[in-house]
Amino acid sequence: MTNTPMFQVEIQVSFGHCDAAGIVFYPNFFRWFDRCFHTYLLHHHAGHAAVCQKLGARGIGLMKVDASFRSPALDGDVLILEMVVADWHERSVRLNYTGRVDGRVVVQGEELRGVFVPDGARIKAAPVAALRAMIEGDGHV
Amino acid sequence: MTNTPMFQVEIQVSFGHCDAAGIVFYPNFFRWFDRCFHTYLLHHHAGHAAVCQKLGARGIGLMKVDASFRSPALDGDVLILEMVVADWHERSVRLNYTGRVDGRVVVQGEELRGVFVPDGARIKAAPVAALRAMIEGDGHV
Amino acid sequence: MTNTPMFQVEIQVSFGHCDAAGIVFYPNFFRWFDRCFHTYLLHHHAGHAAVCQKLGARGIGLMKVDASFRSPALDGDVLILEMVVADWHERSVRLNYTGRVDGRVVVQGEELRGVFVPDGARIKAAPVAALRAMIEGDGHV
Amino acid sequence: MTNTPMFQVEIQVSFGHCDAAGIVFYPNFFRWFDRCFHTYLLHHHAGHAAVCQKLGARGIGLMKVDASFRSPALDGDVLILEMVVADWHERSVRLNYTGRVDGRVVVQGEELRGVFVPDGARIKAAPVAALRAMIEGDGHV
Repeated sequence: MTNTPMFQVEIQVSFGHCDAAGIVFYPNFFRWFDRCFHTYLLHHHAGHAAVCQKLGARGIGLMKVDASFRSPALDGDVLILEMVVADWHERSVRLNYTGRVDGRVVVQGEELRGVFVPDGARIKAAPVAALRAMIEGDGHV
Repeated sequence: MTNTPMFQVEIQVSFGHCDAAGIVFYPNFFRWFDRCFHTYLLHHHAGHAAVCQKLGARGIGLMKVDASFRSPALDGDVLILEMVVADWHERSVRLNYTGRVDGRVVVQGEELRGVFVPDGARIKAAPVAALRAMIEGDGHV
Repeated sequence: MTNTPMFQVEIQVSFGHCDAAGIVFYPNFFRWFDRCFHTYLLHHHAGHAAVCQKLGARGIGLMKVDASFRSPALDGDVLILEMVVADWHERSVRLNYTGRVDGRVVVQGEELRGVFVPDGARIKAAPVAALRAMIEGDGHV
Repeated sequence: MTNTPMFQVEIQVSFGHCDAAGIVFYPNFFRWFDRCFHTYLLHHHAGHAAVCQKLGARGIGLMKVDASFRSPALDGDVLILEMVVADWHERSVRLNYTGRVDGRVVVQGEELRGVFVPDGARIKAAPVAALRAMIEGDGHV
């Protein structure tokens, strides 16, 4: 019954993503997590900037992130990275990611993101209810 | 009559590619030039590693590169990057790149690449004739 | 009594590390975690390649990683990133990282790394006892 | 008699900067060119943001860039990257870069940068005279 928005992007793993051991240099997986979320916003909600404007936010940024590397990804692999909007908290949302090459799991991880709004010269995490309504309203189960 | 291999990749410009001015941070264009060449090798010649093995090379690496930035690319833009194999020299090949967003030219540049082979503990640029035969033989005009 | 090797690197946060919100794009923190570990190996154990050769390993790679982002880091900030070798397990070692700007904590995280050795055409995590002896033997408390 | 501001940064080449051939992945050199310029602004002119504010500019961005790769840089190398403010034109400034490892030239290149100001919804290159006065006035020969 609940809406569980999911989204996926396809990444052509290239030479430049790999390190001297010939496998993907791990920080790239986080660039791809971030890209997946932003591409989701772009395709379903007119993009990060438009969403921030609606929410009066400066950014939908990271509080916490982790990843487990299950098996290596190599130059030439096609990585299918899937994102699931997993949990909503008062001031954060948890996104789960699974990346696969030919069905084999390469990486699993999660991002905890908040809606950051100006707070004087600083920023603080605001309630995420408005973001939730927007995302769950997209009917993209 | 001459074979002019060309190839293109599509890049979804994302938040993480942009800098504090909100436009693509310029070194990313070179990552995309490199990715375009490697994806061409992957699709037409089984990838960089396979090509190197055939040629007895350590890598098909850079000698020179340049780029002109004609107009900005932004988060959410789809960049179509086109590569043309432009010129063959004794020990190098020149690749031309043009990147467009909605038909507007964003970046133009070129890579001069060589076929690097072991030379004692070092590497040196070998003649590119065998690479040329392979690339021009692909009938991919 | 126990040896707790620690190490730190200093990172000059630059324009190109920041995103459109003007703060460090988060995957960069993982590049810096990785750099910190590799610079430690370089300064105390002749570098990653030399260590791998001694251990018969292909790489000292990642199994898991996480980070919490406590406060933003900006263009112009000097980030002091400290690494502590925190725990040894049978086939992994845990490294803790804390990054500070002017004493304020910006990021905390940990890497779980293994010593990966060839296993036929694949790689597997070997016992880390030899790496531990090497690192704890460096007297760098 | 003329003021020729120069500046240098030191880069500890790390594992993560290198590709599967074990040498620096070339787009990194441009990140370092950019970092060198921005660190110069930081140390001598309070940083890019402050300079832009003084000039009414949105950014001091790239028009053109090139680089020649003279010899490889490897994991563990210390790269000394030197920048010279080489030429002033009406609407651009040319910066020359030379990167050396143990005195051996690894990379040479140049950036052509402009002072970009808002122009309706777009940006355009403004005259660079005010930037020149600022930079040549820094007495940093």
